[in-house]
Amino acid sequence: MKSDFLTELESEVLLFDGAMGTQLQQAGLGTDTAPEAWNLENPKAIKKIHKSYLAAGSRVIQTNTFGANCIKLGKYDLEDKVTEINQAAVEIAKEVQKDGYVAGSIGPLGKLFAPMGTLTFREGVDVFAEQIRALVNAGVDVISFETMNDLQELRAAVVAAKEVTSEVPIIAQMTFDENLRSLSGTNPQIAATVLDSLGADIIGANCSLGPQGLLEVLKALNRTTDKPIIIQPNAGLPEIVDGETVYQQSPEEMAEYIKRFVQEGANIIGGCCGTSPEHIKAFAEKLSRLEPKRSAADKKFRLASGMELVELSEDSRSLMIGEQINTDSDKRLTEEIKDQVEAGAQVLNINVDGTDIDGVEIQQVVERVQKTSRASMAIDTADIEVLEAGLEAFVGKALINSVTGREEDLNRILPLAKKYGAGLICSTVDDDGIPGTAEKRVEIAKRIKQQTGEYGIAPEDLLINPVAVTVSSQQEAAIETLQAIKLIKEHLDLKTVLQVDNISDKLPKRLLLDRTFISMALGYGLDAYIIDPLNEEIRETILAAEVLVNRDRDAERYITEF
Amino acid sequence: MKSDFLTELESEVLLFDGAMGTQLQQAGLGTDTAPEAWNLENPKAIKKIHKSYLAAGSRVIQTNTFGANCIKLGKYDLEDKVTEINQAAVEIAKEVQKDGYVAGSIGPLGKLFAPMGTLTFREGVDVFAEQIRALVNAGVDVISFETMNDLQELRAAVVAAKEVTSEVPIIAQMTFDENLRSLSGTNPQIAATVLDSLGADIIGANCSLGPQGLLEVLKALNRTTDKPIIIQPNAGLPEIVDGETVYQQSPEEMAEYIKRFVQEGANIIGGCCGTSPEHIKAFAEKLSRLEPKRSAADKKFRLASGMELVELSEDSRSLMIGEQINTDSDKRLTEEIKDQVEAGAQVLNINVDGTDIDGVEIQQVVERVQKTSRASMAIDTADIEVLEAGLEAFVGKALINSVTGREEDLNRILPLAKKYGAGLICSTVDDDGIPGTAEKRVEIAKRIKQQTGEYGIAPEDLLINPVAVTVSSQQEAAIETLQAIKLIKEHLDLKTVLQVDNISDKLPKRLLLDRTFISMALGYGLDAYIIDPLNEEIRETILAAEVLVNRDRDAERYITEF
Ligand SMILES: [Zn+2]
Ligand SMILES: [Zn+2]
Ligand SMILES: [Zn+2]
Repeated sequence: MKSDFLTELESEVLLFDGAMGTQLQQAGLGTDTAPEAWNLENPKAIKKIHKSYLAAGSRVIQTNTFGANCIKLGKYDLEDKVTEINQAAVEIAKEVQKDGYVAGSIGPLGKLFAPMGTLTFREGVDVFAEQIRALVNAGVDVISFETMNDLQELRAAVVAAKEVTSEVPIIAQMTFDENLRSLSGTNPQIAATVLDSLGADIIGANCSLGPQGLLEVLKALNRTTDKPIIIQPNAGLPEIVDGETVYQQSPEEMAEYIKRFVQEGANIIGGCCGTSPEHIKAFAEKLSRLEPKRSAADKKFRLASGMELVELSEDSRSLMIGEQINTDSDKRLTEEIKDQVEAGAQVLNINVDGTDIDGVEIQQVVERVQKTSRASMAIDTADIEVLEAGLEAFVGKALINSVTGREEDLNRILPLAKKYGAGLICSTVDDDGIPGTAEKRVEIAKRIKQQTGEYGIAPEDLLINPVAVTVSSQQEAAIETLQAIKLIKEHLDLKTVLQVDNISDKLPKRLLLDRTFISMALGYGLDAYIIDPLNEEIRETILAAEVLVNRDRDAERYITEF
Repeated sequence: MKSDFLTELESEVLLFDGAMGTQLQQAGLGTDTAPEAWNLENPKAIKKIHKSYLAAGSRVIQTNTFGANCIKLGKYDLEDKVTEINQAAVEIAKEVQKDGYVAGSIGPLGKLFAPMGTLTFREGVDVFAEQIRALVNAGVDVISFETMNDLQELRAAVVAAKEVTSEVPIIAQMTFDENLRSLSGTNPQIAATVLDSLGADIIGANCSLGPQGLLEVLKALNRTTDKPIIIQPNAGLPEIVDGETVYQQSPEEMAEYIKRFVQEGANIIGGCCGTSPEHIKAFAEKLSRLEPKRSAADKKFRLASGMELVELSEDSRSLMIGEQINTDSDKRLTEEIKDQVEAGAQVLNINVDGTDIDGVEIQQVVERVQKTSRASMAIDTADIEVLEAGLEAFVGKALINSVTGREEDLNRILPLAKKYGAGLICSTVDDDGIPGTAEKRVEIAKRIKQQTGEYGIAPEDLLINPVAVTVSSQQEAAIETLQAIKLIKEHLDLKTVLQVDNISDKLPKRLLLDRTFISMALGYGLDAYIIDPLNEEIRETILAAEVLVNRDRDAERYITEF
């Protein structure tokens, strides 16, 4: 169901309010008081701030609940008041807000998530869920996560919101430093990729960089996601003048950016630290004549770790997924990861099938992998609990390896892919096994596309595996697999992936057959492959093939390599 | 224009007559008299023999002109009487033949053709043409070449007939020994391939092997050509009894084969040495209740030397055409040929472009090539006279490399391809150069198919070259070439060929690109390629590719090699 809020965004650029914190300080809030305590103790002060923003032209006001979670409130011994405080804040806001919307503000929890800190993903989800539930029950129109600088924390926040409500839209905002990276090393493209696939309804950034810096963030976001984008700059970088924190940018200076924000794709504009009703008034004047732009995003298959984005499109480099990593020993794991990544693997396939690894252990493995490399990750297991634990722990957008066309598989795995925003390898296999013909494989792929669509999984998040069969047992199957690649791409507009090494089983000179087959498959448009990246001959063949199928513009990588 | 004779063949199995020679000897012909001299000196005897065959049931009688060419008649100082003798023979036959047909019999010239002997192809054509002209002018219904045991001589005979007449149908018969080979090493499949493409209307065998042997010949012919087939067995192998040549098979024994002949696809049955009116009478009785079968031939791309057939079909081995052979020195030529053939080349590409070789010299080169190997040959030259000389000299069915879609090219080369029965490499190039898209290449191929069709060149004799372009200058072209292979095969049902080595021009590690591209092309269904057969890596890649695309059943060649 599309809320009024999202509908209005299609035709309007919405104006949020400005800073709450700065205003509260001016109203006399002491440093030993939780700002959110005033929802109970001094609601009039809050109400006054809201009113001033509404008078300035805000269409949306944000509740005074930035730190109203049990961890932060606990520092003021208010951990039991989470519901009460959030509820009060919403009531205050709703009292003054007549035509517009109330956004429930949620900031970071104030405790580091694993792997940087000790808070587990699940614990984080539960803390967020408590606050979200209070805000939603009190009737906010939209949940607004803001000032998040750890991607993993924001992932937990969005997952929590999805667990609490399927109706209230979710805004997910990160903050970035001058290098356009967050604390977790995440850049705007990565943030947009991960948050989009997690199901955030509006994606953006607030605070930290001032309007000029956020303009760059905005451009990057707008190239990556077609979701509405929110930008809430602070009033420039803070300076200390006479012992007080002062923000330097005037309402007029900041308002100069409004037109460019809209041109570059902003759908919501607000102000963060240092902005005042005067700033919002100046924004409102500029905004009144502007209409939202269409998204400039191109839909692509994307995966990401917290620090590195992987993109796959028709003319991009094809995607190298490293064959299974050995998880038995930490030392070997570390070495294999380093070797594979150095050899060009963009995704590491963590195969724990056939091991007795549990949910806790898989999280340790995932953390180790992410400590060792910036690569993306595929999780390869038939154990649904282990899969979910792995997806929780991976800071980024992971790849599930794999789902089949079997109903049972689809029903088990698609909800997880949706919830954790993962890409999906989909094998064209059903209850009758691997089909003999290309057409039958395409049929299964078509059904998978339809069913993933019903779950709200985007078609560009799928990699269809038309399954290469051993030629020594089924010689005509190789051509059918090749043909299927072409048909899946042409008729279903989906990306394809293959694992090629079993094609040559039981025949001599297997590598010769493998590399010849992968040449053919790339010729047919294969987009991705699961291979041993340390296999030089295969790697060289791929480099050559990419020149021939125009996935290596001007043979740049090829010439660099040779 | 289809003659009555060919039309009748569609619904009837026609009965020819039996031996003339044996009958003439019985009538008292001495060994010092040319049998054909009796056309002038003793027409009554000839007439009587014809009558006896007609009475026995022959629908077609053969003129007494087997040796009536200037060379053989010259041995009796009758070289000036060729026209007179042939004309007389036809008149005699026509006088007695009322309902049926008269076939003008033509045997070997009695002098060996190059390369076995000294008679050039052109000299041979002229000798045959003199006799054919006489027979045609006198009104035969069909020309019947018989008892030919040198493929080159029969090639000259058919070419001569085509030069003399486009209306009188041509029967081309060879003789084979117990190994089903003729003197030139030609087997029935080769004969059928070469004679069919030369435009013989009826193809067959006579003499030598008796009915049992000719049954095997018939089966082989019928699998190879869909032209009507003629079989004229002798009455078993001759034996010498009391100093006289005696044929052992009785009319009844031979007649037992008639039903099987028809079942195996014979459209015309007659008798050769040792057969008499009694034999023909016995044949006639068996034949009266039989109708012709449809041809069992499968249309394939075929080339042949005099001694070896090359076949190409969807599931056969792909066709290896050796890259240009150096014609400068005889020694190098011989070595290169041996090396290429040993490495698997089925066709040798004789490229004399850019040399100043003339028509005489090309014939010497062709003879040397055929002395050195049994491989088929492609002739690669822009000089139309050199091309024609080469086509004359090659004993077999050659490949012309190449014609383009340019009108001028088509008009020059298609008549030669038709006349000498050559296969054709057709490059999808026209006056605008090499097209940028696959679709444009297919369009040119389509036009070539149509125009070759108008010349009577069979579509299965074409290899379309969709032209691989250097990727360093036109990177998107490689995919277009691959796509063109598929479209040409699917939409036009034509075979494809590529020369791949220029694809990698100006890039490092060229061989890696070449072998990757040929893998892709074979994956797309490429049927043939012009490569350096001594290039191990390319050769191995092709072996592997053929397993994957199911052109090497059960990986037999692959496993043998590795
Ligand atoms: Zn801020
Ligand atoms: Zn803020
Ligand atoms: Zn004979």
